[in-house]
Amino acid sequence: MKDGRLDNLFQFSREIDKSKFVDRKTYLSDGKRRENDAEHSWHMAVMALLFCEYANEEIDLLKVISMILIHDIVEIDAGDTFAYDVEGLKTQHKREEIALNRIFSILPKDKEKELKALFLEFEEEKTIESKFAHAMDNIQPVMLNAYNNGKGWEENKIRISQILKRQEITPKGSKKLFEYEYDNFIKPYIEKKKIIDDIGRE
Amino acid sequence: MKDGRLDNLFQFSREIDKSKFVDRKTYLSDGKRRENDAEHSWHMAVMALLFCEYANEEIDLLKVISMILIHDIVEIDAGDTFAYDVEGLKTQHKREEIALNRIFSILPKDKEKELKALFLEFEEEKTIESKFAHAMDNIQPVMLNAYNNGKGWEENKIRISQILKRQEITPKGSKKLFEYEYDNFIKPYIEKKKIIDDIGRE
Repeated sequence: MKDGRLDNLFQFSREIDKSKFVDRKTYLSDGKRRENDAEHSWHMAVMALLFCEYANEEIDLLKVISMILIHDIVEIDAGDTFAYDVEGLKTQHKREEIALNRIFSILPKDKEKELKALFLEFEEEKTIESKFAHAMDNIQPVMLNAYNNGKGWEENKIRISQILKRQEITPKGSKKLFEYEYDNFIKPYIEKKKIIDDIGRE
Repeated sequence: MKDGRLDNLFQFSREIDKSKFVDRKTYLSDGKRRENDAEHSWHMAVMALLFCEYANEEIDLLKVISMILIHDIVEIDAGDTFAYDVEGLKTQHKREEIALNRIFSILPKDKEKELKALFLEFEEEKTIESKFAHAMDNIQPVMLNAYNNGKGWEENKIRISQILKRQEITPKGSKKLFEYEYDNFIKPYIEKKKIIDDIGRE
């Protein structure tokens, strides 16, 4: 059987296998190796399933999970930009835009449009679904950092001001989860000096 | 903030990080290393998003994706049972039942019930959602095997009769995808002698 549409969908399915080759800065819970994009996206998606009831407003869970599943595919070309890499963050948007256009153009036109719209909704951070997806994107690595006793934070000399800046969107997705995250996964690691305290927040 | 429900949900989120340590027999598309359960589940979930229109009947996509996301968590305890390991398959059900009870009991009761029901629906292979999820579970590794030029098939001396037995459920989820899979990812690899032809099917 030959089928142009299926050829394109499978070509895209093959291309995204490369997400498993994109390493992030975060270590897994055992601290032994870094996480890759595919693992991160899976973990976030399961967490969306677990924590959806804590969103500030009612969410369309299928949309949240779909967004999460595809949000890092652009990094196949653009690479993972470390959350605290000031120089990298400046060029991130442009690099990801080029990647988005190359990778998603493999898809049939209607699917390209559908998935690009999902990615852009995530990027724009306007809808409750995108805010909640960002909350998962922020909480998942902080949770892993806490579980591996702050290995990534210590290695990269991360300051609490950097973490709080990054986490600004988290309470916009879920106030309750941000509060839990701060009290359980962040504050104790300031006290343990795994995170540098540059603001003296209580 | 202390919150028993959130403690349990995060404890489960931590536990499932171990899915990233469970290696499967399938090699990634570049043939360099084996895939793990978290990567496999992510890849299947994206493929469900891409291929949902090809299900034999209309499907509840959120249910399919949720099922996919959690279907291999039991392997944290039970290990990956290779699709063609006859001895392993005999004990698989019992091992996975014990694992299901241990791991999912970490969750709050209502979530435990919800996610166990999803897992059991997948296992029972009765609903169209579970059949389509199984189609993804079967097509994703066959696709990877084809892309890495049959490395896993060759290493394990896999016969076409074994593959067809395993794939029996695939057309029950999607006739069209099974046909495409057979013609593009299986048949050419019989011809290339990466898969042993023990039945001479055309």
